[in-house]
Amino acid sequence: MAVVRHVTLPAGFVASGVKCGIKQSGREDLAVIACEKDAAAAAVTTRNQVIGAPVTWCRKILPKGFGRIRAFVINSGCSNVCTGKAGLRDAEEMAKRTAQRLGTKPRSVLVASTGIIGHLLPMDKIRKGIDAATASLGRDNDTAALHAIMTTDTRDKYAVVQTRLGGKKVTLSGIVKGSGMIAPSMATMIGVITTDAAIAPTALGKALREAVATTFNAITVDSDTSTSDTVAVLAGGAAGNAVIGLNSAEYKKFAAALRELCGALARAVVIDGEGATKLIEISVRGAKNVRDAEIAAKSVANSPLFKCAVHGGDPNWGRIAAALGKSSAVVVPEKLVIGIGGVTIFRGGLGAKFNLKKVEEHLKGREIRVECDLHVGKGEFTAWTCDLSREYITINADYHT
Amino acid sequence: MAVVRHVTLPAGFVASGVKCGIKQSGREDLAVIACEKDAAAAAVTTRNQVIGAPVTWCRKILPKGFGRIRAFVINSGCSNVCTGKAGLRDAEEMAKRTAQRLGTKPRSVLVASTGIIGHLLPMDKIRKGIDAATASLGRDNDTAALHAIMTTDTRDKYAVVQTRLGGKKVTLSGIVKGSGMIAPSMATMIGVITTDAAIAPTALGKALREAVATTFNAITVDSDTSTSDTVAVLAGGAAGNAVIGLNSAEYKKFAAALRELCGALARAVVIDGEGATKLIEISVRGAKNVRDAEIAAKSVANSPLFKCAVHGGDPNWGRIAAALGKSSAVVVPEKLVIGIGGVTIFRGGLGAKFNLKKVEEHLKGREIRVECDLHVGKGEFTAWTCDLSREYITINADYHT
Repeated sequence: MAVVRHVTLPAGFVASGVKCGIKQSGREDLAVIACEKDAAAAAVTTRNQVIGAPVTWCRKILPKGFGRIRAFVINSGCSNVCTGKAGLRDAEEMAKRTAQRLGTKPRSVLVASTGIIGHLLPMDKIRKGIDAATASLGRDNDTAALHAIMTTDTRDKYAVVQTRLGGKKVTLSGIVKGSGMIAPSMATMIGVITTDAAIAPTALGKALREAVATTFNAITVDSDTSTSDTVAVLAGGAAGNAVIGLNSAEYKKFAAALRELCGALARAVVIDGEGATKLIEISVRGAKNVRDAEIAAKSVANSPLFKCAVHGGDPNWGRIAAALGKSSAVVVPEKLVIGIGGVTIFRGGLGAKFNLKKVEEHLKGREIRVECDLHVGKGEFTAWTCDLSREYITINADYHT
Repeated sequence: MAVVRHVTLPAGFVASGVKCGIKQSGREDLAVIACEKDAAAAAVTTRNQVIGAPVTWCRKILPKGFGRIRAFVINSGCSNVCTGKAGLRDAEEMAKRTAQRLGTKPRSVLVASTGIIGHLLPMDKIRKGIDAATASLGRDNDTAALHAIMTTDTRDKYAVVQTRLGGKKVTLSGIVKGSGMIAPSMATMIGVITTDAAIAPTALGKALREAVATTFNAITVDSDTSTSDTVAVLAGGAAGNAVIGLNSAEYKKFAAALRELCGALARAVVIDGEGATKLIEISVRGAKNVRDAEIAAKSVANSPLFKCAVHGGDPNWGRIAAALGKSSAVVVPEKLVIGIGGVTIFRGGLGAKFNLKKVEEHLKGREIRVECDLHVGKGEFTAWTCDLSREYITINADYHT
């Protein structure tokens, strides 16, 4: 029988997703992803100052952002955010119960919750869900696990990258959920990455932090940063390569593979952005420095006027120039060059003469490329966003607490 | 005959608005507002780095932001932004021709243009418009002048404040346009304020800068800062009060009146925000300092998720808490108190028990109040925004360059 596989593709991992009754839709709402033994692990969590109880738990057990982890338990339908001490107790109980069932310590279990803010978890349902999920862990339940972490998502979002390290084939695989409340300063709503690579926790932590900076932290759907964002990577070591340490040639190879995987997952979140019909890539080069390039790219990516223009298929360089100019990045209008889909539309402080038909054709596609060269330095950054449609308003004005 | 009057309410001012054929709609598109003699004047312009040629001209003739000015010429339908040297020449010619007709120096005439970016002004039409407008200056043309500065605006936006200074009745009156591309760091799209008060230019400059900080710079429709924002005040002195200098008791009174006027005009812009159905006031208190209070208030005011929730009438405190938390202002969830319409809905890190019916009733109104107390200091700031509706997308996705 053909089975869709992602988190269990790397050797040494099992997963499960069950329906425990949190979601009104009756769909899968609790997932456990586990390694057969303690895995090297790293996690990045939201920079929002209002954080969910599960984020507090993750920071408690991985205070440096890396360490060793056996499993990750995740529920959807209720985010356990702004739930006080009772919420913290509930997050810890999720770890404890999962750990008991797997025969490990509570501190070896990461927890994440996603969904509505401000409600306590229905712990009776959660307990039953954890029991059912840990009892059905296996290599054929990836799809159920993925569905169990989704909320307003409309697509399955996963990616796989393979590479060779120290003569061994190594697989990195990830699943991700997120559609609204997606903005820079975060590690997307929830992402789980598994790999059979053998790597030291310190090296894994560094690789994840660096990968997130240019992938999950380079996307925005609506400039709103979630309170629950968590992305974690578990490295089980079953590939049998020599353990990767910092600053080795193998480290660079692994980090590049992880960055590729995170990039694919991050773009998948934007493509599934609330109301999105198009993926927009904004590349800024020639900025004063990398920080300026990021600020400029995100200023365009978060401009509602620009996003509406793309939705309407309009090559409106005025809105791109205005969005760059309002940012704190150094912008000199006379030096600025703006292109869409490889066609220069603005140069020397003026609109350029260009093939309107060609640009409009590009804007009709599903993937839009905007290229900005500030010509004041060497900083580069690429951000991803989606267009802004009436559907975004419908989803978010009709969603009630 | 009853005549609507605003900019000519203060003694000593005349105005005119004419149809010179720039707007496809055929409506008024060129205005001149003039003082009978040189007025003390102050102007604040956009902080966007991409600026229109008229902004460049205003900064050239008022390098310190204040001085003496006779008249203000404004056209709509074309913003003269990103138009290079030809655009600068055109802006200067607008000032020169207006000055000639009024018998004054070009450097005594402010210029503003609003409308589409990236097109040269149709100078033949502009010249004829200036000739017609300067020939028809009077005290009965205020409505035509106001209509001549509007673009996507759907309402006339003006306000009048009266006070007594040095025993004399003094009138301050203002008109404003702006509906989209409205965001902090600006002085709204275009605002013209006239007053018969006698005041030194330095004092007028200070009063305008301070008033703008908490009024025009406290509003946002869509977080997009315009390239053309200009607000100017002309003080003719016809009221006959002793000239107001800095640091006098009369200065404080005048500054308060100007702040009141700017506040009314700024709120009028938000009420007429593209697609807006509600005015939302976000008051932040108890912030670490005023800067933090402003950052926190604007983070809520610019949150698309929050603005959609208000549009849907949903008391979604989770989105308010998340928007505060994602900002760089110091936020301690346990200390945070959030209220809507005077009803506390979040406290101590948790949703409060509250009268849902009362809050939902408030959210059905046209003016929504959100109160946030961070309880970490004494900083206060109030920001204004509008809800985010499908109509915003319609207006901005269907607008073509």
